[in-house]
Amino acid sequence: MTSETAGKVICAGLGPGDPELMSVKSWRAIQGARHVAYFRKEGRKGQARSLVEGLLPEGVTEHAMEYPVTTEIHFSDPEYNRMMAAFYDSWADTLAEIAKTENVVVLCEGDPFFYGSYMHLYTRLQGRAAQEIIPGITGMSGCWTATGQPITWGDDVLTVAMATLSEAELTRRIQETDALVVMKIGRNLPKLRRALQAAGKTQEAWLVERGTMPSQTVQKLSEIEGEVPYFSIVLVHGQGRRP
Amino acid sequence: MTSETAGKVICAGLGPGDPELMSVKSWRAIQGARHVAYFRKEGRKGQARSLVEGLLPEGVTEHAMEYPVTTEIHFSDPEYNRMMAAFYDSWADTLAEIAKTENVVVLCEGDPFFYGSYMHLYTRLQGRAAQEIIPGITGMSGCWTATGQPITWGDDVLTVAMATLSEAELTRRIQETDALVVMKIGRNLPKLRRALQAAGKTQEAWLVERGTMPSQTVQKLSEIEGEVPYFSIVLVHGQGRRP
Repeated sequence: MTSETAGKVICAGLGPGDPELMSVKSWRAIQGARHVAYFRKEGRKGQARSLVEGLLPEGVTEHAMEYPVTTEIHFSDPEYNRMMAAFYDSWADTLAEIAKTENVVVLCEGDPFFYGSYMHLYTRLQGRAAQEIIPGITGMSGCWTATGQPITWGDDVLTVAMATLSEAELTRRIQETDALVVMKIGRNLPKLRRALQAAGKTQEAWLVERGTMPSQTVQKLSEIEGEVPYFSIVLVHGQGRRP
Repeated sequence: MTSETAGKVICAGLGPGDPELMSVKSWRAIQGARHVAYFRKEGRKGQARSLVEGLLPEGVTEHAMEYPVTTEIHFSDPEYNRMMAAFYDSWADTLAEIAKTENVVVLCEGDPFFYGSYMHLYTRLQGRAAQEIIPGITGMSGCWTATGQPITWGDDVLTVAMATLSEAELTRRIQETDALVVMKIGRNLPKLRRALQAAGKTQEAWLVERGTMPSQTVQKLSEIEGEVPYFSIVLVHGQGRRP
């Protein structure tokens, strides 16, 4: 992670949504920043940017890294891969250029090394700029805390799976674990519901949206009708050993 | 979680070890505390207490909750269960008594609802005292950040398992996952090594001790000889999709 640059690229994990749940270290890095960068969907303010509202110092330069595509093209399409690779290549160049002379703080929701987008810049910046990763509280942790029930006890096995997996694989994963977290829900919800049903876990499943934010919702999945956001999380709590 | 008490029991997640990685919310709760409580092994200072060194306000009352037993008796022994239950019962009484009139902050390493000891007080305090849980960065997150490699990419499945499981189950879990976290290592290391070997993952496994602390160590498991602490963590990184 060392390099000859005078500055470095600091990836600051922002945690699950409540700004007070970011680490003291991220908070300080952001308040001392002269450059910040963040991912967002074109035309949106961006969740990462929203979380630091009121925290950025005066005169900071903002770099909005706008995804060329989000869900309009499926990730299995070679065109998706080509566009995303070019996007990450280009922003890696920009960040490396800034880091030649000063620090730049990249704002990342959740925990950067846990399914985070920054990882694609991280690999591209190896050997080109010094980097520092500040971990964060994961979105899933914000969500299980919001349910008011511990996610794992004793020797419980926890499985974290994406709802983009096949129905058969989801079913098997749900059957074989004690505690479960499923991310990337959105349009995969009907498939996930069938998998939970097949595994006999429908009644134990919770759906949490915007965990730890003022607008958070915590509901039993069985009581939800209609669509849910891509970034909502489904949980099944473990029931392990407890004296 | 509501009750008639004037105070509440606040469980403050402390994160993985570096005090600056605790959340702003936990930091403030601790600095404003009149009572703090923390678990520790008899005769030790306790890791949770050590992490807040220099942060506690003057005049705070400290409540050291000393485990009556840690690993001297196996958790499958009924006597272990009886002693631990009595211990949690007694401290739940004490915390409920304090919360009748004022707040008490319970210091918890990592993330309280993720294999945390506080959960055993949490369930006992239901209906007896108002409670607030402040999540934290997990120890495992501190460890994978310390390795300098993302733990999960794309649609990787992450499995978190305890090394206390049987060798056969550990082997199966390791074979069937993309990314792996194993906790509670200590004397279970030889068994875990055999399971990693059987699953063909020996060369991909890392062992991290005290991740994010000044004394952290990050090593390939294959290069380690001898014993390792109970609270060290073994990781295998996922290798999923990356544009």
